Parts: sequence; C-alpha cells; structure tokens
Amino acid sequence: MQNRTYTADAEPGDTVTVAGWVHEIRDLGGIAFIIVRDTTGKIQVKFEKDEMDDDLVETGLGVNRESVVEITGDVKEEPRAPTDVEIVPTEVEVVAAAEPELPLDPSGKVDADLSTRLDNRTLDARKEDVEAVFKIRGEVLRSVREQFRELGCSEINTPKIVATGTEGGTELFPITYFGEEAFMNQSPQLFKQLMVGSGLERVFEIGPIFRAEEHNTPRHLNEATSIDFESAFYDHTEAMDACESVVKAAYEGVAQNCQDELDALGVDFEVPEGDFPRLTYEEAIERINATGELDEMLVWGDDLPTEGEKALGEDVGTHYFITDWPSEIKPFYIKDHDDDEELSTGFDMMHPRMELVSGGQREHRYERLVDGFEQQGLDPEAFDYYTKMFKYGMPPHAGWGLGGERLIMTMLGLDNIREAVLFPRDRQRLSP
Amino acid sequence: MQNRTYTADAEPGDTVTVAGWVHEIRDLGGIAFIIVRDTTGKIQVKFEKDEMDDDLVETGLGVNRESVVEITGDVKEEPRAPTDVEIVPTEVEVVAAAEPELPLDPSGKVDADLSTRLDNRTLDARKEDVEAVFKIRGEVLRSVREQFRELGCSEINTPKIVATGTEGGTELFPITYFGEEAFMNQSPQLFKQLMVGSGLERVFEIGPIFRAEEHNTPRHLNEATSIDFESAFYDHTEAMDACESVVKAAYEGVAQNCQDELDALGVDFEVPEGDFPRLTYEEAIERINATGELDEMLVWGDDLPTEGEKALGEDVGTHYFITDWPSEIKPFYIKDHDDDEELSTGFDMMHPRMELVSGGQREHRYERLVDGFEQQGLDPEAFDYYTKMFKYGMPPHAGWGLGGERLIMTMLGLDNIREAVLFPRDRQRLSP
Repeated sequence: MQNRTYTADAEPGDTVTVAGWVHEIRDLGGIAFIIVRDTTGKIQVKFEKDEMDDDLVETGLGVNRESVVEITGDVKEEPRAPTDVEIVPTEVEVVAAAEPELPLDPSGKVDADLSTRLDNRTLDARKEDVEAVFKIRGEVLRSVREQFRELGCSEINTPKIVATGTEGGTELFPITYFGEEAFMNQSPQLFKQLMVGSGLERVFEIGPIFRAEEHNTPRHLNEATSIDFESAFYDHTEAMDACESVVKAAYEGVAQNCQDELDALGVDFEVPEGDFPRLTYEEAIERINATGELDEMLVWGDDLPTEGEKALGEDVGTHYFITDWPSEIKPFYIKDHDDDEELSTGFDMMHPRMELVSGGQREHRYERLVDGFEQQGLDPEAFDYYTKMFKYGMPPHAGWGLGGERLIMTMLGLDNIREAVLFPRDRQRLSP
Repeated sequence: MQNRTYTADAEPGDTVTVAGWVHEIRDLGGIAFIIVRDTTGKIQVKFEKDEMDDDLVETGLGVNRESVVEITGDVKEEPRAPTDVEIVPTEVEVVAAAEPELPLDPSGKVDADLSTRLDNRTLDARKEDVEAVFKIRGEVLRSVREQFRELGCSEINTPKIVATGTEGGTELFPITYFGEEAFMNQSPQLFKQLMVGSGLERVFEIGPIFRAEEHNTPRHLNEATSIDFESAFYDHTEAMDACESVVKAAYEGVAQNCQDELDALGVDFEVPEGDFPRLTYEEAIERINATGELDEMLVWGDDLPTEGEKALGEDVGTHYFITDWPSEIKPFYIKDHDDDEELSTGFDMMHPRMELVSGGQREHRYERLVDGFEQQGLDPEAFDYYTKMFKYGMPPHAGWGLGGERLIMTMLGLDNIREAVLFPRDRQRLSP
C-alpha cells in the first residue's frame, strides 16, 4: 500500500493514511472515537459529529469491530488520547468489513479457552500478548542462527521423509511414498552426523520433527521445531559449551530487540548469567533424594522422573547440565567414556521447569555402532546407508538437539507449549 | 578438540596440531608427503624417512586415504608445497582409519555418477565443489532471511501435517495421523495468509514442502525448500518489489561472503543489476511467438510450455516477471484485476532457465473466495478453518513462494536440482 503510515510513526502535524483493524468504538454522543490497531500499535481517531461530513461519520462509526479500515487525516496532539495523539479524519474507507459476532475478542477483554483460540488463530494473534510471543519466537530463531554462525557452523536441511526412524523407541508417523512405506522424520540425528563426516564438519539445522507419541501434556507436541547442532572433532564438553552459548544468545537477542514485546507480556525477563552448573547424574540423584520430594529414593540406573526433575530444578534455580549418565539409559549412538563403559558422555541441559536439550559425544567407531544397533533390537542392515559412512573416516563428533518450543515456553513462562506454536499438532488437533 | 589449528591458519614458525582427512599420499622414496584436508583447506605434511622416528613414519604413511588423522608438528615455509607451507610432524595419530576401497573418490579425480554420489553423500561432500554448493546454500538462506527482516517480516513456522491440501491439482502424500487421514503439506499458502490477518501482518517462512508429483526431471523434487512471503496491505506490484529485493539479496550475500566457494566452483557469478523487466503475459506470448522456436503459435489462454519459457528466457537474458495472466490459468485464491475479471494479478518470476517464483495479490473477500473453492471443484466446508477467518477483517494482501533449490541451481548453473539438496527425495530415492 502506497503512502501508508504505521500508527506508531504518526506525528502531530502530519497528514497520514493509516491502515489497520478497528480495535474499539466509543460513542460519547456529540463526539465519538475509534481506535485503529496495526502491527506497530494503536491510534485514536476522533469524530466530531456536528462538524464533520455526515457520510464520513456514518462510515467511520457504522463499522463493526475488527473490520479493516484505511483512514486519512491530520494528526493532532491530544494528551487525553492513549498515545497522546489522535487523527482527525478526512477520509474513511472500509476495506474489509467484519461480521458483528466474533468467535473471540481480540481486544483481550473477554477470555477464551485455548481450543477456541487455536481454532481462530488469526483473531487470537491480533492480541498484543499473543503477537508478542510470535515476534519473540522469530527473534529467538534469528539470534540462535547468528550464534551458530559465530560458532562456524554451516546451515543444513535434511529430509523429513525417511526410510527408517532414528531410534527404536519413539513412534513414527507412516507415509505412503509412491507405494513404498516411509516415515516422517523424528529427528535429523543420523543426517547431521553424516554431515560432520563431510567437508562441512560443523552444522546446524532448525526444522520440524514429527513424533507419533501418545503424550497429551502441556509440554509435548506431535510436530515440533528442533534446533540441532553437530560438530566434528568436538567432545561432549565442547558440545555443552556450544549449547550454553546458543541458549544465552537467544536470551540476549530477545533482551536487546524485543523490549516492547516483553512489556506486552509482562514477563520478568533475565538473561542467564555465569556458567550453567554441570552436575553429574550421580550428584543429580543425590540432590533429588536430599529434597525429600520423592516417595521413593532414586538409585543408580533410574531415569529421572518428572517430579524429580522438578525438585532438582527448584533446588538449582538456573539452567544446568546433567552429565555422565548410566550408559544403559542413553541411546546407543551416544559414546561411553573411554575409561568407564558404564558411563555415557550423554548430557541433558535443563531449565528449572523441564529438559530442553539432549546431547553427547557420538559413537564414531563402525564396529561399536553396528553392535549398538543390534543391542537396541534394530536391524543394522536397515541403517546401512548411515553406518557404512563410518567405514571411511568418520571423525569423533558431538552434538545436541534443543526443543525450540520448550526454549520459548520456558523463556517466557508460558503454561502450555501450544502457546509457542501458531498451529500446534497434537492427538486431538489436526486443523487448522 | 582443544588446541586444534585449522590448516588455513597454520603459519610458518607455529607449532600446530591439525585434524582432518588424508587427502593424498605421495611416496617419493626417501621423502614422502601426505596432504591433510579440513573444512578450511589443505596442508602438506613432510616425512623424511631417514631422519624421523620409524614409528612416526610408519603410522603416517601406513594410513589409507580419507582416514582421519591428528598431526602435531612445526610449520615451515616451503615454496614447493601447494600452500607454500608444510608441517614437519612430531606426532601422528590415526583417529579413524578408512577402509582401503572407497565407494567414491573425494579427491574428485575419478568421476562418479550422481546416484553413487547421493548414496555416499558424506564422501561426496568432502569434494571442494560439493562442499562449496552447500556453504553457498547456507549463505543464501542467511541473506534471504536478513532481507525479509529488512522488509519488516516476522518469521513464522506453519504445520507440515495438515488435514487438507492447498490446491486441488497437486498430489499429496497421505499420512496416518492417530487413525485419521492427514497429508504432508504441499505449501504454506493457506497458513501464511491466515497470519497476514493477525497482528503480524507481514511474514516469511522457509521450510520443507512435499509434492507427490510423478515428475522425474532435473528440476523437480518431491521434497523441496519453499521460501514464502506474504504481506497485508500489499498489492501484487509491491509483492514483486519484495521478491526482486530478496533474490538480489541472495546474490549479494553470496558475492560478499562466498568468494572462495565461487572460485572452487569456477562459476561466472554476476549479481543481477537494474530492475527485473516486467512483461505482461500478452507480451510474453508475443515474444515467444516471435522467436519462431515453437512449432505452434501460442494464443491467449495457453499456459507457457517449457520450450516457450526457454526461448523467452534466452530472449530476455535476465531475471524477469510475467504479469497479468489469464485468470483461468491461475489458482482461485489469486485475485483478479478489479477492472478486468479475465485478468489475474498473479505473476511469475523467471530466471532465464526456469520459473523461480509464483505469486500474486490474494482474494481477500469471503464470498468470492468460497465461490473460488467451488469453481475449483473443492468442498469449501473442508477449508472452513481457513475461509471463516475471512469474515472477520481480512486485509488485502499479496505474496509469493520461491523455490529455494531452484534459486541455488540457477544461481550456480547446476545441471540438476539434486545438486542443491544434501539428501534429495524423488520417485526413486528415499534413502539416505
């Protein structure tokens, strides 16, 4: 649209044309106001009924809320207006009239349940706080990618239609691919590993992953965004350093570039400072046991139950790592310590509320990798496309996957992970 | 890896540890060389057999090509070495031995067919030119995103598992989604449109799209990367301006940041200058007819055949737009001109070799949109999640989709679109 002025840029003395949605209509009798909202903010438009052209007044005040209008007029100072300025209109055009009954109220005055909101995401994301989440989400992706580039990574895109899953345990969505059985990829794990053995050496990918898990919790999605990193010649400690730097970069980017959005959300935002503590698994279970929050004491070899993670998170109070897990509870493609085969180089990176990252040094030795598939009950032949590359000079390497929505959810204190996705997919929801 | 020096950073006088692949072994008798390759380049390592420790010489020269090694030593000037320096080693460690027979030769001396290369992408992407394509691909994505941000876009991610396709014509891959029938999304079209009606107003997405088309050509993929843009309050000419700026930004980014990669590819690279010519469809068919390349003259209403596009591309010689198409050959969600309903606001952006972009102003009027579904033979009720949002203030909007791999393919003069994807998916190829 030629000559459009954003509401935030309208200065007293200007003649402007603003375009946006009718946020509110207030008719006080002789005088009436409409508030026009666009992506930058809101502005008041004043109608003095006796002094203005009847057609103009009728058009401006006859409109339904959430209709799209273009309004031309002069900007005046007005201390009583919400933004200290108002427009005195000379032209009003209704570009797209809204029906009088709305399925939800974008002014935010009337609450709607999450399901109604997701069914009407267009209207829902007109709300300042919802819009803010998704602007922040964009900034998180931007600053994460910038940090990957600082780390010397090449961006890769790996296929989402695959012949085999990454792991045995997690459920896969089956596809019919030209008559063949195929699946939607649950992780770029195998592909990013293949690329650290190429000339790229250090790579990242941000893309969708698909998990047919029957979870139905506020922190699981069936389609999610995975932020993946993998580097040749890195061990697990170097991978943790990279992980910490990426998470901090996300917070720093948001702090620097999204102050208005944080204000709209009313979030008490702090960039994590200092090194993330690195607890061994053994220390973690001791500290969990010491909290007394669990009915039964954890012993070596137990996976950490959700309540255990929660108790530990409250105890630690910051992002932290858990390292040196028992090998038997980490995936077979994670390397064990050279001096103790019972101990894995796998690590998790935790927010006090939940796990964000899973990573480790990878098994790069062909024979051991193939053994690992067998021990996991998988047919190594089905993964031949992957394992055979380990026969031709696969460097030691390490990496991790970070849940994009969990990062945003914990950063902004969102109750439900679905608040961090425009169109979430779960067992009940396939549309829109 | 602590204390690693990249081969490109090794300076005479330094003591370094380099890590990488054994690119070449040359044994001249009393003296022998290995060339070590890493992501930054290559370096010569000299073995003087009589003057060095036997174990060291044996380890260094006993290794197979493409094995991963770590070599510590002193860097010396050596004008006869390929990079004017060489390492005199004091320590050699074989970190991952390669088998003696390789499925393809990463030195590039022996050609391999595309299928063998794709089966062994790890080795293939050790070749300087292949690695260069994917480093450039990363830079294209980076600079395109930066330009989107310049344009004031928010980044969005829309679902890849969907209940309905975008268009009737293109084939969909079916998925089983918790017992329900679903599909892999063939385009973010409907979702990005829903978001221009939200507070975000202007959005972009770069993500995978899936098309079950039975094409088997050097320029079609069944899983591809779509670069999508959509803006409220834009008409088709403004969308074309944005499109032109994004494509130019990709070329400029590569010119500025990928000179080494362009040299490795030997590509004669030029950043497009000046405005892209905008031909109407009518002018386009006239010019195609005037070339005399087609057996039969094109008439109004014909779609442009591939040979026609080719003839026109040679005639124009630069990127260009084709505008003002007959409405009947553009999708129903593209708006017609207000003063001529036979004429669509749809446009294509062409590289001389092929179409890169398809876009237009969208139909934002509810009644007409629903009529369009019916005329296309689609059930508007199935698309209710989308159309109903048009009842509540959907602004006029325009946008486009750009084929990411086609952009890279035409930019670098690649023969086959599969050269621009690490792990392409086509009718024959589902793995790796």
